[in-house]
Amino acid sequence: MSSATASAAAPRTPVSVAPADLLARHFQRVRARTLALAAPLAPEDCVAQSMPDASPTKWHLAHTTWFFEAFVLGRDGGYAPPHPDWHYLFNSYYQTVGPMHARPQRGLLTRPTLDEVRAWRHEVDGRVLDLLAGGVDDDMRVRIRLGLEHEQQHQELLLTDIKHLFSVHPLRPAYDASLAQAPAAAARPLRFRAGLQGVHEIGRGAAADAGDFAFDCETPRHRVLLQPHALAERPTSNAEFLEFIRDGGYRTPTLWMAEGWDLACREGWQRPIYWMDDDASEFTLGGVRALDPHAPVCHVSFFEADAFARWAGLRLPTEAEWETRAARLPSADGNFADAGLLHPRGPQDDDAGATQLFGDVWEWTSSPYVAYPGFRPLPGALGEYNGKFMCGQWILRGGSCATPAGHVRGTYRNFFHPAARWQFSGIRLARDEAPGGHAAMQEGR
Amino acid sequence: MSSATASAAAPRTPVSVAPADLLARHFQRVRARTLALAAPLAPEDCVAQSMPDASPTKWHLAHTTWFFEAFVLGRDGGYAPPHPDWHYLFNSYYQTVGPMHARPQRGLLTRPTLDEVRAWRHEVDGRVLDLLAGGVDDDMRVRIRLGLEHEQQHQELLLTDIKHLFSVHPLRPAYDASLAQAPAAAARPLRFRAGLQGVHEIGRGAAADAGDFAFDCETPRHRVLLQPHALAERPTSNAEFLEFIRDGGYRTPTLWMAEGWDLACREGWQRPIYWMDDDASEFTLGGVRALDPHAPVCHVSFFEADAFARWAGLRLPTEAEWETRAARLPSADGNFADAGLLHPRGPQDDDAGATQLFGDVWEWTSSPYVAYPGFRPLPGALGEYNGKFMCGQWILRGGSCATPAGHVRGTYRNFFHPAARWQFSGIRLARDEAPGGHAAMQEGR
Amino acid sequence: MSSATASAAAPRTPVSVAPADLLARHFQRVRARTLALAAPLAPEDCVAQSMPDASPTKWHLAHTTWFFEAFVLGRDGGYAPPHPDWHYLFNSYYQTVGPMHARPQRGLLTRPTLDEVRAWRHEVDGRVLDLLAGGVDDDMRVRIRLGLEHEQQHQELLLTDIKHLFSVHPLRPAYDASLAQAPAAAARPLRFRAGLQGVHEIGRGAAADAGDFAFDCETPRHRVLLQPHALAERPTSNAEFLEFIRDGGYRTPTLWMAEGWDLACREGWQRPIYWMDDDASEFTLGGVRALDPHAPVCHVSFFEADAFARWAGLRLPTEAEWETRAARLPSADGNFADAGLLHPRGPQDDDAGATQLFGDVWEWTSSPYVAYPGFRPLPGALGEYNGKFMCGQWILRGGSCATPAGHVRGTYRNFFHPAARWQFSGIRLARDEAPGGHAAMQEGR
Amino acid sequence: MSSATASAAAPRTPVSVAPADLLARHFQRVRARTLALAAPLAPEDCVAQSMPDASPTKWHLAHTTWFFEAFVLGRDGGYAPPHPDWHYLFNSYYQTVGPMHARPQRGLLTRPTLDEVRAWRHEVDGRVLDLLAGGVDDDMRVRIRLGLEHEQQHQELLLTDIKHLFSVHPLRPAYDASLAQAPAAAARPLRFRAGLQGVHEIGRGAAADAGDFAFDCETPRHRVLLQPHALAERPTSNAEFLEFIRDGGYRTPTLWMAEGWDLACREGWQRPIYWMDDDASEFTLGGVRALDPHAPVCHVSFFEADAFARWAGLRLPTEAEWETRAARLPSADGNFADAGLLHPRGPQDDDAGATQLFGDVWEWTSSPYVAYPGFRPLPGALGEYNGKFMCGQWILRGGSCATPAGHVRGTYRNFFHPAARWQFSGIRLARDEAPGGHAAMQEGR
Repeated sequence: MSSATASAAAPRTPVSVAPADLLARHFQRVRARTLALAAPLAPEDCVAQSMPDASPTKWHLAHTTWFFEAFVLGRDGGYAPPHPDWHYLFNSYYQTVGPMHARPQRGLLTRPTLDEVRAWRHEVDGRVLDLLAGGVDDDMRVRIRLGLEHEQQHQELLLTDIKHLFSVHPLRPAYDASLAQAPAAAARPLRFRAGLQGVHEIGRGAAADAGDFAFDCETPRHRVLLQPHALAERPTSNAEFLEFIRDGGYRTPTLWMAEGWDLACREGWQRPIYWMDDDASEFTLGGVRALDPHAPVCHVSFFEADAFARWAGLRLPTEAEWETRAARLPSADGNFADAGLLHPRGPQDDDAGATQLFGDVWEWTSSPYVAYPGFRPLPGALGEYNGKFMCGQWILRGGSCATPAGHVRGTYRNFFHPAARWQFSGIRLARDEAPGGHAAMQEGR
Repeated sequence: MSSATASAAAPRTPVSVAPADLLARHFQRVRARTLALAAPLAPEDCVAQSMPDASPTKWHLAHTTWFFEAFVLGRDGGYAPPHPDWHYLFNSYYQTVGPMHARPQRGLLTRPTLDEVRAWRHEVDGRVLDLLAGGVDDDMRVRIRLGLEHEQQHQELLLTDIKHLFSVHPLRPAYDASLAQAPAAAARPLRFRAGLQGVHEIGRGAAADAGDFAFDCETPRHRVLLQPHALAERPTSNAEFLEFIRDGGYRTPTLWMAEGWDLACREGWQRPIYWMDDDASEFTLGGVRALDPHAPVCHVSFFEADAFARWAGLRLPTEAEWETRAARLPSADGNFADAGLLHPRGPQDDDAGATQLFGDVWEWTSSPYVAYPGFRPLPGALGEYNGKFMCGQWILRGGSCATPAGHVRGTYRNFFHPAARWQFSGIRLARDEAPGGHAAMQEGR
Repeated sequence: MSSATASAAAPRTPVSVAPADLLARHFQRVRARTLALAAPLAPEDCVAQSMPDASPTKWHLAHTTWFFEAFVLGRDGGYAPPHPDWHYLFNSYYQTVGPMHARPQRGLLTRPTLDEVRAWRHEVDGRVLDLLAGGVDDDMRVRIRLGLEHEQQHQELLLTDIKHLFSVHPLRPAYDASLAQAPAAAARPLRFRAGLQGVHEIGRGAAADAGDFAFDCETPRHRVLLQPHALAERPTSNAEFLEFIRDGGYRTPTLWMAEGWDLACREGWQRPIYWMDDDASEFTLGGVRALDPHAPVCHVSFFEADAFARWAGLRLPTEAEWETRAARLPSADGNFADAGLLHPRGPQDDDAGATQLFGDVWEWTSSPYVAYPGFRPLPGALGEYNGKFMCGQWILRGGSCATPAGHVRGTYRNFFHPAARWQFSGIRLARDEAPGGHAAMQEGR
Repeated sequence: MSSATASAAAPRTPVSVAPADLLARHFQRVRARTLALAAPLAPEDCVAQSMPDASPTKWHLAHTTWFFEAFVLGRDGGYAPPHPDWHYLFNSYYQTVGPMHARPQRGLLTRPTLDEVRAWRHEVDGRVLDLLAGGVDDDMRVRIRLGLEHEQQHQELLLTDIKHLFSVHPLRPAYDASLAQAPAAAARPLRFRAGLQGVHEIGRGAAADAGDFAFDCETPRHRVLLQPHALAERPTSNAEFLEFIRDGGYRTPTLWMAEGWDLACREGWQRPIYWMDDDASEFTLGGVRALDPHAPVCHVSFFEADAFARWAGLRLPTEAEWETRAARLPSADGNFADAGLLHPRGPQDDDAGATQLFGDVWEWTSSPYVAYPGFRPLPGALGEYNGKFMCGQWILRGGSCATPAGHVRGTYRNFFHPAARWQFSGIRLARDEAPGGHAAMQEGR
């Protein structure tokens, strides 16, 4: 690691600086949570990589630790990492920091072992906590916070990646067979609510409240022009998606983007990736289970989400439409990973009016992932975090049942390739409204 | 061809209907022009396909003819095509019309021969002219006009595809060694002009003037919000791009989108695709020639254009910024294919103030190709023309030296994958302005 | 071309030297024959390459001409080739001579055109004839003879390659729709004749008769040990192969070499490559025709031939078994290309006793293509002709209906990869005999 | 597993039947040895698969256990395997037994865990020993012996596969850093000894001595014709191979088979696969060590061995030449895995006359792997063991430093693809002799 480069300049991410003791407690909680997520797994499970997009559990544990070495402990020089030759192994994509192991070969890194990685985590944790105890400047607190948000992103990836690994195993082992299942309630009829029109603001500004955090790609706060529109009041359900399947959705090219159609043909897509062939059960982190028709459909690609919306005569929301709707909610509550389900759940008896904008499933938008007007990436190596991926990916919003609670917010911009299916990604429908239409609740198709 | 399907409904493209005799003359001119473009080629040249993105000349000649059979002559049923089994060969991607030959195999279609394709063109031309002479309804006139605009698009592709084919030939033959070369003048210093701010309209509306045409993807006219910005008054020159190369632009990953960097490394990019290794000459349709430092840089991908802009501390324009600037020009004049150069030219002594927004090079924008708010594709099979490609591609504006004069306009949206280099694609820089800044001319970097 | 290297030493191929005037006439006949084979084709047909193993017709015409420039005219230096930069294009694989165009890209060489290649042939022909008229040494005559044998090999490849090209065209054009069809007679019952046992000689020795020729890989003549065996008296027929198909031959992995089974599964093999799906017609150089059940099965790979033999409880012959059998025939007559059928024919009414060892179909043997004991390749660049391919290929014997008459002989060793199907390759069965068994005619299975 | 099929018929492999108690002791030793070989590895190491040709250690442990279930315990029906659904995972390539997991995906089988596989091994061991204790027929004893020979083959593969896995790890971990290193002595000058000439016998016959074993592909014993020849008295050394490198061996295409040259260029071969770039050290199972110039060169492909021999003006031996030479040795002693080096060693001070025909390195021959005359594979599923691979592979002889002592013999035929480099494969030179030459010791080149 070239610490000179990595520490080049203070990140200007809009992070309000928490007191060191609060930050230390947060640090301990987040780091412990990652280990807890790996706890149900055997060492063998933690090595394998089922596709280039996914990483082994052990790699996630190590990479998040590398992040603290590269960007926190290594900021000021003088830090002697216990395993300097591991940096090459666990740098993900920070070209500024140094060369890195080829991504598709991560499953061949059987060394260091899981125990060695755990010991390294323990040592690095101690060093960071010492640093915090000794007093740190604002920039360092911002870097630590960034490292924790980064770690939370990898917590979700750890779950989605292990789910994929187990899904390609002929015996389909469960990550945790004892995972609770949510009681099923019937989905409400699909209703639409008109959104804001005209010029409004989205994104994160410079003046953040205490405790707040945002990634650089959420900035700056800027004005957008909203077309008249309405959003569905809940995500699309499995039952609704099944209608699409039964109506030949996967056999009708005119519903699809050309690239999606080619891919679906080439790979033989006929249903969401983790559905069983009977269209009545699905593979989950708890093993194979009956499909809940009332739960949000999950693990669909942008191509499937977009085709479904076209089949319904509707469309996906823009990210601005989604964000201005979310901004009107009192809080970002929902079915997050901390709820312990690790699976989207259908509506509950007592949740009248719940939109499920947050949690359950990431919602594909119709917005490609590009820079906001006036966007500036973080300086130095941290500038590689988000900005260089602003090509060929699409925005998802709202977090999922695998996202740590408290990690997402209304301005949060997740992004994946339109072909990606292994994330907990689902669908919220939108439609055009007549200009000037009032914001009344309106019934769906 | 399922003519029932293909004729399902009248296109609602915003085309004003020309009188039949004008249309007949236009038809004859455009169809003849395509043949003229193929005239310098041997039959052998017309067969080969140098990459899946490109098509053989003979295929272009045949496909544009198929288009008239499928969408014009075949609209009402009752048409007996002379070669019904050629439809499978020359359907490009209209799934609604029927199955089609695999795109990467177009170079294996040695039959029908060039002469047979020419004879087919002749016969179809006669049938269309007979139709026009007999009187046609508005929809049919609109379809014929669409077929001609479609043919003009393929005229440009014919040139870019043959250029690519010859570029991979070890002997680098010229398409036409007698092509004129523009006299060189020194490029003006790069200046920027502030653009409009706030809410303005772009796109094409329903009420078009007589003679006008637009593709469905240019509609509807709609309001956009422009951020304060300024645009360069001319395209980036070869000399300016050479500075980027010499400054290590192709060796600096932080300037690049991650996907572009990976591609550039994998394929060993070091300069625009048709530059020779000496950085002083380039392959053109007229053969290998000295590089004019004052001419616009050409044949760069979005990835290179974007990296160049980042290196310059600037950015690419949005398509709305480009279009509102172009709307302020008195006309869409420029160095188009009809000028006979088939190569971008540097500034001319007598063109003070020329922006070269039109012609010379297609200008990459920072806008992904997505649907305008309220976009509706054409009904029926023609709906596959544009809409299904609104994923993973980027907008280019303004036409090039290979575009037929009169084909483009301010609202015209061209689109290609960000990796594409074989089109006549170049760079226009943009920059953010302070909000409220006046629109004065300002000096560049 | 490095003529110094190419002319390094005289070939020691066992060729008896014909008088110059005889050689000149042979030269004219062979060269003219190649052009005649290309005559039914349009220029467009002569450009395309349907797979890396095949070459365009135009390339065959040019490469065989290059051969005379590289190894005959260029032997002594001082030769000024009219198109020196074509050598890179038309060198096939002679590393010693110089670098070469990538084989899979031969279909992109639209220049020189067919007419230009013909003109080049004409010029080179004149130069070679001048050379002969002026008197040449023995080595030069040997080189010219080698060039003609080389050209005859390409005559066969020209036919098999154009057949493959047309076979992948959706309209399946005929190379020559007027090709004669042989009258069909019923195949004789399959009988076996015991072969020689013990130590015998095969291969070509140094003392060749006047007019003889052999490739280096046929040398030296050497002793082999023959196991007791018998060979089928005729090739396997289409009807017999159809039994294999109907008995599930293509669905029974235990009949196949593992590599062949994997390939057959991956590519979905269900019948010989040019059979239509009805198992009742096949694509031929004359177009699609009814399958003659009595004609030899053709266009099967080694994998299919070997699986068929295993299904029949028998095996393929070794090349020594084949050659010692062929040595007992009075002549190498058969259905060769000069017969004008360009397709294997069934037995004729008047051919009682005909073994069809020569002509009709190349016969896969069970012998991998390796060097004979004591083999020495030709010196210099010509040593690359055969020797470097002695890995991974299998021997075929006897020539086919696409082989020029007079080109093959009993010692001739053809070789192809076991997966190759586009040659006129068929099956002759063999079986083990009890040791000491007499050579009586015996009935088949 | 279809036990009906698997037990179809008694193997007819030429195995003499050992008493049950001897066999039981042998069974325990071999099975324990496999576990011992895995002992230095972490569970993580046992999961990964570094290339499709290699398998994970855990897979080897499981597959060898599956073999006993499929072919021994399951022979008679009535056996209830504890984990029937593991059969799909650990069947290698026995199509007759049932479908199987795709070979390149073996590294994704994180379950069952290493502990679970060990427990399964323990259970199956008990069942086999119970079977033996209860009294078994001859066929069953033959099957058990076959299972043990099979397991010994996988013991060697376990070592070569883990060596490859560690070699592609950037940190190059050692399998066992405490492995002993052989003391170095100077290699003797290379001498040749003339071999037998004329007709002799090789292969295994039906009447085997007590305790003997052979694979079906070693049968039947048959006569071969030996050309006059001589074999090198020791393998080629690292120092000799280094001469080849320094003389441009890897840059001289005329030394190589065409397929090998293409591969070497494509993959950038410049030295044996495990040599470091300095040509002075190499990666071993004990980690990176200095290269012993006197030790046999190792980890070369057939292509490299063949090119080296051509460079030396010599050739590789045929398998018959090798076998008739080996038959004249008093025993098959050598540096096998049991010696604990797991690396080839140079000549020892006290081994005057040692040929190293056995042990150290497998020796590539010039013989493709094909059936012996009259070969019959084992009946039923066991017939898939060897016969179906008799295409595209080459024979190696003599065993290596990773082969269990006692596993190989003079008739043993190992086989690998000519590109394979990850086995302990080396070179023994041969040369042609004048016919009738006497068998005197002769000096080398």
